[in-house]
Amino acid sequence: MAETLIQIGVVGCADIARKVSRAISLAPNAALCGVASRSHDKAAAFAAANGFPLSAKVYGSYEALLEDPTVDAVYIPLPTSLHLHWAVLAAQNNKHLLLEKPVALDVAQFDRILEACESSGVQFMDNTMWVHNPRTAAMAHFLNDAQRFGNLKSVRTCFTFGADPDYLKNNIRVKPDLDGLGSLGDQGWYCIRAILLAANYELPKTVVASYEPVLNKDGVILDCGASLYWEDGKVATFHCSFLANLTMDITAIGTRGTLHVHDFVVPYNEKEASFLAGTDTSFNDLVTGWAKQPNKHTVTTHLPQEALLVREFARLVAQIKFKNSKPDKKWPTISRKTQLVLDAVKASIQRGFEPVQIQE
Amino acid sequence: MAETLIQIGVVGCADIARKVSRAISLAPNAALCGVASRSHDKAAAFAAANGFPLSAKVYGSYEALLEDPTVDAVYIPLPTSLHLHWAVLAAQNNKHLLLEKPVALDVAQFDRILEACESSGVQFMDNTMWVHNPRTAAMAHFLNDAQRFGNLKSVRTCFTFGADPDYLKNNIRVKPDLDGLGSLGDQGWYCIRAILLAANYELPKTVVASYEPVLNKDGVILDCGASLYWEDGKVATFHCSFLANLTMDITAIGTRGTLHVHDFVVPYNEKEASFLAGTDTSFNDLVTGWAKQPNKHTVTTHLPQEALLVREFARLVAQIKFKNSKPDKKWPTISRKTQLVLDAVKASIQRGFEPVQIQE
Repeated sequence: MAETLIQIGVVGCADIARKVSRAISLAPNAALCGVASRSHDKAAAFAAANGFPLSAKVYGSYEALLEDPTVDAVYIPLPTSLHLHWAVLAAQNNKHLLLEKPVALDVAQFDRILEACESSGVQFMDNTMWVHNPRTAAMAHFLNDAQRFGNLKSVRTCFTFGADPDYLKNNIRVKPDLDGLGSLGDQGWYCIRAILLAANYELPKTVVASYEPVLNKDGVILDCGASLYWEDGKVATFHCSFLANLTMDITAIGTRGTLHVHDFVVPYNEKEASFLAGTDTSFNDLVTGWAKQPNKHTVTTHLPQEALLVREFARLVAQIKFKNSKPDKKWPTISRKTQLVLDAVKASIQRGFEPVQIQE
Repeated sequence: MAETLIQIGVVGCADIARKVSRAISLAPNAALCGVASRSHDKAAAFAAANGFPLSAKVYGSYEALLEDPTVDAVYIPLPTSLHLHWAVLAAQNNKHLLLEKPVALDVAQFDRILEACESSGVQFMDNTMWVHNPRTAAMAHFLNDAQRFGNLKSVRTCFTFGADPDYLKNNIRVKPDLDGLGSLGDQGWYCIRAILLAANYELPKTVVASYEPVLNKDGVILDCGASLYWEDGKVATFHCSFLANLTMDITAIGTRGTLHVHDFVVPYNEKEASFLAGTDTSFNDLVTGWAKQPNKHTVTTHLPQEALLVREFARLVAQIKFKNSKPDKKWPTISRKTQLVLDAVKASIQRGFEPVQIQE
């Protein structure tokens, strides 16, 4: 059995790698086989602090991990500006690739990563965890149900949190040479992904950034928003910010239904998550109350969403490794669409809030 | 005691007048003294069907009611295009004025109504019911609390419902010569009011309508949205529509807190209403859940919000009638601000989604 586990190594000791290391441990079809840092000591300390098995290896360089033939796949939590280099190198070393979001600084860079994955026949997946929660499948089922939801008319998403002064000064997400896309790349990524989910992954035609984004002195986005328009009249808006209290909402409204969720990226609790869904909601005759209200739907899961992500990733890798399957196209396609919209928002901000057309 | 009750007459038999007639009956300081229609029979039938007291009078013309010296105040639920004429005439007849929203076709018309009220020394109030629910006071208290909410950063509101084909063809709200402001005047009014409430009634500086509003063949708005911007960086967006499932949300995000409500205009239930409020909401250490979540706050009321509105209106009228007070300025000021923003949204749509500056 152990031989069928997908061996996943962690490239870098980012804070988020703690959560993902635990997820790799929890996934029944994956094994946490090692961690690399530019410092051997740092990697060793990380492994010790994060429950790595005794069999896990510690590497004093990223290259050493990538060159280890016992490693099937890597998780790369490095800053966005380093994705192109290390993701391509990982693919060239035939490592299947679980890459932190945003996947790249722009879609041109991302296409080079995808080309490298395709050349080597390795699986690509980005580390957007919440879409792997079974709640998300239940929400998608509702949103695609003509009887319960009808056709999507509008969707609004937000993800904000109040970063403290130290974060706003020192975190990699406010550094132009590290996570140069700032709040848009970090939180906006999730908002855009949720909008695409609600639109059944149909790309919008036009993207317009909202006025008054907040940028730091180095030009990194700390707060922004945008509106997205489809040809059939669907409209979406989102808002992401490092400067406001922790909030993460989806409100999707269809011709027949409405969906509300307040904890879409990280559910309040690990083992169960809820959303509100209403169909043909209506007032009573005198409009003094509602005859039909939205209902709460709760979905339970024995594994946290990040472990379900790893399980899905390892399942696809195992198909390739043991069954000679081709890499799955679904996840990289969705990643690319997310990045395309993100690029359009950034372009609209740079062009003074002009509408930007999305071209696939 | 009965002598101190404010005698309120209803000018027109609109559907909404059923709810407001009941509210006048329920308000402890008001009496439902009569109803007027252009047809005496229609007024009589309305009075019989809506529990008017035996003492209530029935008038075969609006003028007859306005000229009756036993009537202290009138509720005018007529289509918006008729507000200017009948509201001014009511004020000239020294009737205190409870006027259905939107208060006028534009702020210039509304100013003529206010001038007439001022000349006669009568109270003006618009019929925005939800702001009189004690839940709204609790929400406003939260939103103005520096410790629990901090400074407002963004607020998003929506009010949509799916009008049926008959409504979309025949309702006064889709007729350019009746409620010519369509969904913007009807539902957008509430969205704008909620945004102003969250901004503590500070007007935005700039208003930009969203692309792709839906207008009917006569140019009446069936679906639209807008973004509002303040000089200090606050941003608001709203969406109103006759073309999507019944939904009415406020999401307000401050530097320290977040407020969510899903039934802001008409609470699910008459006797109690809830909202979610979070302060310094946060993730746990590993970001696998929330360490601090929003909490549900429930506010009960023995009177429905529309009766509380009437009670407040009658209280102000009684102050004038029995205590020689001046008319209260708060409610007409808020009505005027709401209309100003509404006018700016309409202007932005007409000018091809150009930003429109608000001038008080």
